[in-house]
Amino acid sequence: MYKTKAYTAASATSSLASDTIARRDPTEQDVQIEILFCGICHSDVHSVRNEWSEFLPTTYPIVPGHEIVGRVTKVGSAVTKYKLGDLAAIGCLVDSDGTCPNCKAGLENFCPNQVLTFNSPDKHKTAPVTYGGYSDSIVVDERFVLRIPPNLDLAGTAPLLCAGITTYSPMRHWGVTEGKKVGIVGLGGLGHMGVKFARAFGAHVVVFTTSPDKKEDALRLGADEVVVSRNADEMQKHAGSFDFILDTVSAKHDINAYLNLLGRDGNITLVGAPPKPLEVAAFSLIVARRSLSGSNIGGIPETQEMLDFCGKHNITADVEVIPIQKVNEAYNRLLKSDVKYRFVIDMASLKSE
Amino acid sequence: MYKTKAYTAASATSSLASDTIARRDPTEQDVQIEILFCGICHSDVHSVRNEWSEFLPTTYPIVPGHEIVGRVTKVGSAVTKYKLGDLAAIGCLVDSDGTCPNCKAGLENFCPNQVLTFNSPDKHKTAPVTYGGYSDSIVVDERFVLRIPPNLDLAGTAPLLCAGITTYSPMRHWGVTEGKKVGIVGLGGLGHMGVKFARAFGAHVVVFTTSPDKKEDALRLGADEVVVSRNADEMQKHAGSFDFILDTVSAKHDINAYLNLLGRDGNITLVGAPPKPLEVAAFSLIVARRSLSGSNIGGIPETQEMLDFCGKHNITADVEVIPIQKVNEAYNRLLKSDVKYRFVIDMASLKSE
Repeated sequence: MYKTKAYTAASATSSLASDTIARRDPTEQDVQIEILFCGICHSDVHSVRNEWSEFLPTTYPIVPGHEIVGRVTKVGSAVTKYKLGDLAAIGCLVDSDGTCPNCKAGLENFCPNQVLTFNSPDKHKTAPVTYGGYSDSIVVDERFVLRIPPNLDLAGTAPLLCAGITTYSPMRHWGVTEGKKVGIVGLGGLGHMGVKFARAFGAHVVVFTTSPDKKEDALRLGADEVVVSRNADEMQKHAGSFDFILDTVSAKHDINAYLNLLGRDGNITLVGAPPKPLEVAAFSLIVARRSLSGSNIGGIPETQEMLDFCGKHNITADVEVIPIQKVNEAYNRLLKSDVKYRFVIDMASLKSE
Repeated sequence: MYKTKAYTAASATSSLASDTIARRDPTEQDVQIEILFCGICHSDVHSVRNEWSEFLPTTYPIVPGHEIVGRVTKVGSAVTKYKLGDLAAIGCLVDSDGTCPNCKAGLENFCPNQVLTFNSPDKHKTAPVTYGGYSDSIVVDERFVLRIPPNLDLAGTAPLLCAGITTYSPMRHWGVTEGKKVGIVGLGGLGHMGVKFARAFGAHVVVFTTSPDKKEDALRLGADEVVVSRNADEMQKHAGSFDFILDTVSAKHDINAYLNLLGRDGNITLVGAPPKPLEVAAFSLIVARRSLSGSNIGGIPETQEMLDFCGKHNITADVEVIPIQKVNEAYNRLLKSDVKYRFVIDMASLKSE
């Protein structure tokens, strides 16, 4: 074990503060990474504040962060894919059983024994739970380490590891390709990545937002059209016309209004998770063989595919880079959607703590 | 035009009674069919009683019935597929525009200009609306006439035209094949067909019912297992294990209880339409990339495929054959689920009126 700096929260009501944590020394198949940037995801806030206590209670202290990019500083003797000095990334997962049908299909994100990057029981027993990326360094099995295309901006790459794969995966799964009409509901951290990917796939991209003042930015990000979802006439013009809609909104909203915009065999995939059930009118589904589904990040092979796709199309997130000393302020701004479009912590700032 | 006998309802509160209606003389591409049997579908009752007034108000008098089998009595000069004396069937559709993308894909069931077998504006202007199968004869464009395999019992074939295709189509669409685990929710007219098809496709079939006394019958129809859905322990045993669930229930019910039974990429398709919205927990969908969808009968090519499949596997509906004079009584029994599993009118009984 070795000690490394981190920002931790001691309870659901504590601020994040500078601390020291233990990490395991790299085993044979581990890669040790010096963390350069870590994105701030909404899940970080939920977990720090124990807002998902029902299905994933938080063990304190918690070190959040699962949008990690850095540089390899040590490799175990059996590591074959990485060497000292390589750029490397870690997303939401650091381990899985490797033997279940999901793992065998490259869908570790659905493995019942998956280990999340933070707040999952630590099978190495270095700590009660895994510690995430708000830290100087991290040690991860090379199977869960991802390669970063060399042309990408590193700070803008960090959010690809969660916001990126979360939006890329369902679009691939539901066949978003050239010529399809694709809607993106909500223009936040997830939504803005959704726009970039849908555009890069060659789709006709329509952004739905409750804020008319986001229109210009949506167009800049790659949208072909912007619809203010509170305007029923504007919505009606698109009735029955979409192939796919990515719904990134985690607040309560009228899903039928969007279901009715789908054409035959159209699909809406939820990647935001409203806390209360959505009211779904059966007829909205039946009349055009529509479907409503959910998606949860992506498997490791697809996450690498996504990063490679980003390299090829030069796609990164639009980020506001902050020093870690501003993380608590950033959480408060995030809850007010006051960020374009993702906070990323410059981990160099942690060295001065 | 010619006159033919039919049972009609004069208003939403009227019983069905013997009457005479006008049909068009067959045009060049029409087939005239002497109706031998007509199934009674729940939609008949909804339409007769104007219970779907919101989206499909009933024009009176109404002649319901869209599960029609009979014998060809006349063909237009351009008809190529049918000749006098052939057995023939008509389902829920008698026309469509033939030019839209849905029609071109053989999915006339999603054509925006489809003409339903009853209560749709009659473009031939023989009557304000089309008249269905509770009648001596019917005249239909040959494109919407289906061929009946010669080995099938005719009375049991009638329900295939709606209950059959409604359950066959979504199972084909969502890939029900040998080795898949398939659930059927509700064991009525639709559900019992679902069991037969799922079994014939080689799936492992589990019937969910609120009535423990249906167990024996479910097994007889082809189910491998029967789960009493009110028993939470029994339900829990199947958590995360289904590939596909066909939900035939049109009353309000807890859809999340079934969503949680789906494995990764599992799908529930609704073919019953509960009048009130279903409450769907986003997490139920997200955690395993599950989907919830709807399906609405099937296109003409797939309906023919379904009939041919039934011929090959000797599948028909379990029916209770009644004379048309008992149709009002049958409606009341249907609403109490007092039928195994579909009423079919022997149209010979109409000749004595």
